[in-house]
Amino acid sequence: MTIPKDIDTPEIMVDLDILQRNIDRMASAVRAKGLNLRPHAKTHKIPEIAARQMAAGASGLTVATIGEAEVFAAAGVEDIFIAYPLWLSPQKADRLLRLSRTARIAVGVDSAEGATVLGVTLGNGAGNVAVLVEVDSGHHRSGVRPEAVAPVAEAAARAGLKVTGVFTFPGHSYAPGMPAEAARQEQQALDQASEVLTAAGFHVTCRSGGSTPTVMLTENSVATEVRPGVHVFGDAQQLELDRCAAEDIALTVAATVVSHHETAADGPARFIIDAGSKILGSDRPAWASGFGRLMDHPDARIAALSEHHATVEWPGQGAVPAVGDRLRVIPNHVCLAMNLVDDVAVTSQGELVDRWTVAARGKNR
Amino acid sequence: MTIPKDIDTPEIMVDLDILQRNIDRMASAVRAKGLNLRPHAKTHKIPEIAARQMAAGASGLTVATIGEAEVFAAAGVEDIFIAYPLWLSPQKADRLLRLSRTARIAVGVDSAEGATVLGVTLGNGAGNVAVLVEVDSGHHRSGVRPEAVAPVAEAAARAGLKVTGVFTFPGHSYAPGMPAEAARQEQQALDQASEVLTAAGFHVTCRSGGSTPTVMLTENSVATEVRPGVHVFGDAQQLELDRCAAEDIALTVAATVVSHHETAADGPARFIIDAGSKILGSDRPAWASGFGRLMDHPDARIAALSEHHATVEWPGQGAVPAVGDRLRVIPNHVCLAMNLVDDVAVTSQGELVDRWTVAARGKNR
Repeated sequence: MTIPKDIDTPEIMVDLDILQRNIDRMASAVRAKGLNLRPHAKTHKIPEIAARQMAAGASGLTVATIGEAEVFAAAGVEDIFIAYPLWLSPQKADRLLRLSRTARIAVGVDSAEGATVLGVTLGNGAGNVAVLVEVDSGHHRSGVRPEAVAPVAEAAARAGLKVTGVFTFPGHSYAPGMPAEAARQEQQALDQASEVLTAAGFHVTCRSGGSTPTVMLTENSVATEVRPGVHVFGDAQQLELDRCAAEDIALTVAATVVSHHETAADGPARFIIDAGSKILGSDRPAWASGFGRLMDHPDARIAALSEHHATVEWPGQGAVPAVGDRLRVIPNHVCLAMNLVDDVAVTSQGELVDRWTVAARGKNR
Repeated sequence: MTIPKDIDTPEIMVDLDILQRNIDRMASAVRAKGLNLRPHAKTHKIPEIAARQMAAGASGLTVATIGEAEVFAAAGVEDIFIAYPLWLSPQKADRLLRLSRTARIAVGVDSAEGATVLGVTLGNGAGNVAVLVEVDSGHHRSGVRPEAVAPVAEAAARAGLKVTGVFTFPGHSYAPGMPAEAARQEQQALDQASEVLTAAGFHVTCRSGGSTPTVMLTENSVATEVRPGVHVFGDAQQLELDRCAAEDIALTVAATVVSHHETAADGPARFIIDAGSKILGSDRPAWASGFGRLMDHPDARIAALSEHHATVEWPGQGAVPAVGDRLRVIPNHVCLAMNLVDDVAVTSQGELVDRWTVAARGKNR
């Protein structure tokens, strides 16, 4: 694909046709499994994309912050899960109460202290906020061990909150060879946590799991819903983990070659493009081949990244792009790239057809 | 310092008194060396900070993009250097021409092709834009070898541009033990490039160098100006490179402990704070001790980072912060953190005294 002439670089481009196909494909695959789909909107942060996800049958949205929830509730989404162990400051309490009057809101908890503060701070409004206890299924970030969910749920119930179930994020699936094992651990953790909660007298209606790498391995025997995010766009991480193909990638960064680096006699040709960490993001897991990929040049590598420069190492074969040539870059982690721009260029069949505002960009609180 | 009650987390806080001291200290140190100071505004992106830098005697500002230049020109800065080898698309040409009518503008070039397109595209307006040839002093990013500057300058002159000198960015100074050697290479490169350009018949009036790690090592025998950026705030990289002390750090991220991770019998205590890569940035050089530091707990380490979670490993001694406690985080790379927020909380003597808009945030083009 040639980058449309009316797009200057660096700029994020979203291919509308691939985006819609990704949304539809995930919706039908999850429906076929008998699971609810609650896509994570932190990936796209765009109401127009959320509307397409809801139209395709999503049961609601997942977000990471109250600020994101506010944006999507204002855009008409009526069922939102804030999948984060919120510590409710007075400012957050006011906002969460207001939010819970306009949409059905659930939030995460993973400590008795956090649950107590949440319920007590919400006061009379606590009954309008459902809580899910976060379980650590092996990622070892937030969440409690499956066998330790009951005290958290009990603290929440004592504080006037309605406990509806458990959730987990199998983030350790983001490594080569890990998705299957992470999905197995995720199932086991949800299963065990749900049993513990039921034994403690809770009525568990929601068991929420799923990340883009594991969602297709999630079974409805233990989970009731899944929360993939990245699948709407795909990115270089998913590509290198073999969780998507290049033709499934809906988001690229249009970039221009701005400088040619002198090539060492025995080294690869190197050049600089104008997409740096301030538009690609600088996530680079140890197993990644570089700081992103070039869409039409799978053998090229982004060997170094600074704020406005990416250094591309060019494979031996093929003519090296000239200064002024334009290329499409696949970011490593699309959730970070999207959070760096105010709007995106929407393309279809190689034409610029729309611009969407990244309405929830920067909503960190 | 306690985080002011009216600040919710996560949020960037700028300490006004330390900021002003950093600005003044750099201004007088550079003045004492007989050099001009042209601070890099990509670090802060805030007109109020630029105004303080100009008031302290800066000769102008450095920026990385036309978009940043537009913001600071609109705020009244009259002399701006875009230290980047711009490839002038039609869109950028229009904007650069408009800009050059409101401020004195210089831009970087590092290829004959780029210089030709720049001059030809600007047409009659080329005479209003000065150019500096970028020299690679060892960072091996953009820039040509010092001995190769003449053809680039000659192409620029042929295209109607006024060549005023050379510039370099010794980015390889950002590693332990490197600042002195990088500064030496920087001086040598500027010196040689300047001689080559003079021998080719150019009148070299500007030799521009300097990064925060090397600026104090830059001599006026070869450079005429320096372009440090990070010094206004400091960050964890500068701290770990010994280029600033903890009491010089003017920017921290207010964060809350949201989760306690179960501690392995033989491991350090671990907890989660609500400042992740979407507010800290995810730059982590190989030599860094982690993804940032805690201001009041120098022995703690940020061992892992995701979008809204940072995992802190706590040293053996001292009470582990409780869920709900608030901490100040020093980002690894402050230029990325600032680019993630719409505004910052300005504090003085532990009180919230102002809010500044990050007016040039996201201006990647």
